[in-house]
Amino acid sequence: MFSASRTAARSIRPLTSSSFFAVSNLPRLLPVRTMSTTAPRADPFKPAKRVAGQRQDVWSIVNEAAAASPVQPIVNMGQGFFGYNPPKFALDAAKEALDRVDCNQYSPTKGRPRLKKAIADAYSPYFGRTINPDTEVSITTGANEGMLSAFMGFIEQGDEVIIFEPFFDQYISNIEMPGGTIRYVPLHPPKDGATRTSPASEWTIDFDELERAINPKTKMLVLNSPHNPVGKVFSREELQRIGDLCIKYNLIILSDEVYDRLFYVPFTRIGTLSPELYERTLTVGSAGKAFYATGWRVGYLIGPEHLIKYVAGAHTRICYSSVSPLQEAAAVAFEQADAHGFWDESRQEMQGKVQRLCQVFDELNIPYSEPEGGYFVLANFASVRLPEDYPFPPHVANRPRDFKLCWFLIHEVGVAAIPPTEFYTDANAHIAEDYLRFAVCKNDDVLETAKERLRGLKKYIQ
Amino acid sequence: MFSASRTAARSIRPLTSSSFFAVSNLPRLLPVRTMSTTAPRADPFKPAKRVAGQRQDVWSIVNEAAAASPVQPIVNMGQGFFGYNPPKFALDAAKEALDRVDCNQYSPTKGRPRLKKAIADAYSPYFGRTINPDTEVSITTGANEGMLSAFMGFIEQGDEVIIFEPFFDQYISNIEMPGGTIRYVPLHPPKDGATRTSPASEWTIDFDELERAINPKTKMLVLNSPHNPVGKVFSREELQRIGDLCIKYNLIILSDEVYDRLFYVPFTRIGTLSPELYERTLTVGSAGKAFYATGWRVGYLIGPEHLIKYVAGAHTRICYSSVSPLQEAAAVAFEQADAHGFWDESRQEMQGKVQRLCQVFDELNIPYSEPEGGYFVLANFASVRLPEDYPFPPHVANRPRDFKLCWFLIHEVGVAAIPPTEFYTDANAHIAEDYLRFAVCKNDDVLETAKERLRGLKKYIQ
Repeated sequence: MFSASRTAARSIRPLTSSSFFAVSNLPRLLPVRTMSTTAPRADPFKPAKRVAGQRQDVWSIVNEAAAASPVQPIVNMGQGFFGYNPPKFALDAAKEALDRVDCNQYSPTKGRPRLKKAIADAYSPYFGRTINPDTEVSITTGANEGMLSAFMGFIEQGDEVIIFEPFFDQYISNIEMPGGTIRYVPLHPPKDGATRTSPASEWTIDFDELERAINPKTKMLVLNSPHNPVGKVFSREELQRIGDLCIKYNLIILSDEVYDRLFYVPFTRIGTLSPELYERTLTVGSAGKAFYATGWRVGYLIGPEHLIKYVAGAHTRICYSSVSPLQEAAAVAFEQADAHGFWDESRQEMQGKVQRLCQVFDELNIPYSEPEGGYFVLANFASVRLPEDYPFPPHVANRPRDFKLCWFLIHEVGVAAIPPTEFYTDANAHIAEDYLRFAVCKNDDVLETAKERLRGLKKYIQ
Repeated sequence: MFSASRTAARSIRPLTSSSFFAVSNLPRLLPVRTMSTTAPRADPFKPAKRVAGQRQDVWSIVNEAAAASPVQPIVNMGQGFFGYNPPKFALDAAKEALDRVDCNQYSPTKGRPRLKKAIADAYSPYFGRTINPDTEVSITTGANEGMLSAFMGFIEQGDEVIIFEPFFDQYISNIEMPGGTIRYVPLHPPKDGATRTSPASEWTIDFDELERAINPKTKMLVLNSPHNPVGKVFSREELQRIGDLCIKYNLIILSDEVYDRLFYVPFTRIGTLSPELYERTLTVGSAGKAFYATGWRVGYLIGPEHLIKYVAGAHTRICYSSVSPLQEAAAVAFEQADAHGFWDESRQEMQGKVQRLCQVFDELNIPYSEPEGGYFVLANFASVRLPEDYPFPPHVANRPRDFKLCWFLIHEVGVAAIPPTEFYTDANAHIAEDYLRFAVCKNDDVLETAKERLRGLKKYIQ
């Protein structure tokens, strides 16, 4: 190997010292200060506030707990990654794309034309209009960076954004990065959620409360349906009322629909309700969620040109472009999904997994919110008695009861789930402190092992 | 296909209207305003300043010009994507990764362990220390998002960042997004650049000018070596002097070294010069540039833990995680590159392409900066006489002479190159107005076609 760096002084074409000190004849761009005022910075490595003071995040708490548990291996139903591979037609398309020169090089910043067209074709029937792939679709580096691009495209310092609690935790930093302020509106759980299993639809919006959260600084409202972690699919009536408020106050709607292929009751997209709503709605989707490939980082936004062009502009400044060969694979997957019966199969299979897991909650009389969509089950462990002298570590003992439940399940039965108060502000965390969120997008044998282990909770249930 | 959305009112478990109006007993998070003060926003779709008022970018001007040219197809030497595929050992690794469940799912936010280790192993010899893969390496969605993550990790509103002109255009928006202010310090070209070919090392820093650009708000300095578009490899002496200033004023150095495998003179990494410089330097690399796969979006940063942890924190908030299967492929590629003799071959091959193209400039007496690294050639077309009545479109006629040269080359000889004033502030653009940047990372037959076409310029040369 060529001996680079670390080697001694450079011998080729040395610069003369005079060139270093040559006085420039070029105009100076900015006013120059005298050196006497310039002291070295006292805090050179101080991080920006937006990344400083990080509380340990839920994912690392759960992972560390899992690693320290006496039960090994842990059944991990925490994070929502799939325990199985994308369908063969998507994988084959990815491998074929890797053999093509253009698929290994920069994608256009707004996305590969074939993927934009495949998405426009796949979604035009839902929207009841012909979506223009060049102006009404933009590809992003996963739905996450897509949402950040939407906030970066429209939020200025001091603008407000309404989100419903519980929320996907990345929304918070994504809104705060461009200087936005968040107004939280809680989804109200069924009052008897601790004693009765009920459909996720019973988590409801107080529309009066929602309207009171709107003020002249409000610029956007974020919706998530099917909802993570509640499993709620917002009804057409709810969406119409939310939409009416957004029209009344002239708000942009950012509709996070990354679980849009997994619904077990009729599913409505808010952007499809009327032309007035389409023109103010950015619909966010995820090829990773759709095709069991959360690591592919291919997201997309659909919406009117006057919104999409600024999302694309922000995306260009953030990531420049998104992963090229997997965009091509996602394009082929969207083109072929219907012919393979994939969407039906995917939905039926996931609903089966939901039902498979919930059997054990029924057995144990642990109530849960019956999911109407997505792949999370929110179960209420109010009846589980945690031993008073249980040795929780300080960083868990200081958090709400759901963190203790999470730790306890990992250590006593060997199943990892997510404590949902992480998806709440401190003020509203009490709403969720008896719940845990289980991701069911795992192989059936894993789900069966989880159920067998959860039966070990019986002796702690009052 | 299941009939979703667009369908009529939902019939399952309708919400009662009373639940919509139920008064919440939950504490309210934020003060509530009376509705009478809330008027609808007058400017609902107004974009944020950071994305508004976009001047047409150079890439779309060049692409549109290419599409409109009478010479078809255009030989595109504009954007720096490769005209050929990644090496087989990298492609094979990508295909194998696609067969593994874990490689298709979320990567850890800081990157897949195997890639972090492969990078630590590959770079430890250059740094003369054992780089800790868990604390001193972070994987990003291309080097671009890696640089944004560094700025997001350390720049607060009003902090200043020094960059050298010409600059990679994405630096600007990436510094401005977190609220940073840019101070530009020009690289001074050789005074006889219009008449004499000279090594890229003759583009020099006025160190007095550099020091005067530092003030108490200065937080970071961005370096790029090998340099795009100049082709300069900063000498060890230059780096030491830059480093001394950064130590004196306590600045963080962000060293963009994405062309680090392509150097034709000895190459030094500033972070390797001393422990004092290592502790303030973030070194940025690109697996896409290294392995001919600009569409893979796998970048990385190397640096001390007290810097890397905040870069990783920002990256998590921006993209959550980066593309998983291509990270695994990049890991294998780094592991195997030496055994395949890839780095030597890659460097020799690219140097050969530089020389191949430059023959035609020598023939035509068009002077250029001899690249010391990277894959761009900056050639000076001061001697090319543009016909006075040439019909440039208004958006080109209004820009500096290099845009007109670019348009003229596309339309008259069918070769696309990039006008480098795009990489300058308006005040300093005159420095580069006779230059064009050619990317040579194309197949040799493409380079030969380009040369044959460029010979057509002869009749315009004075």
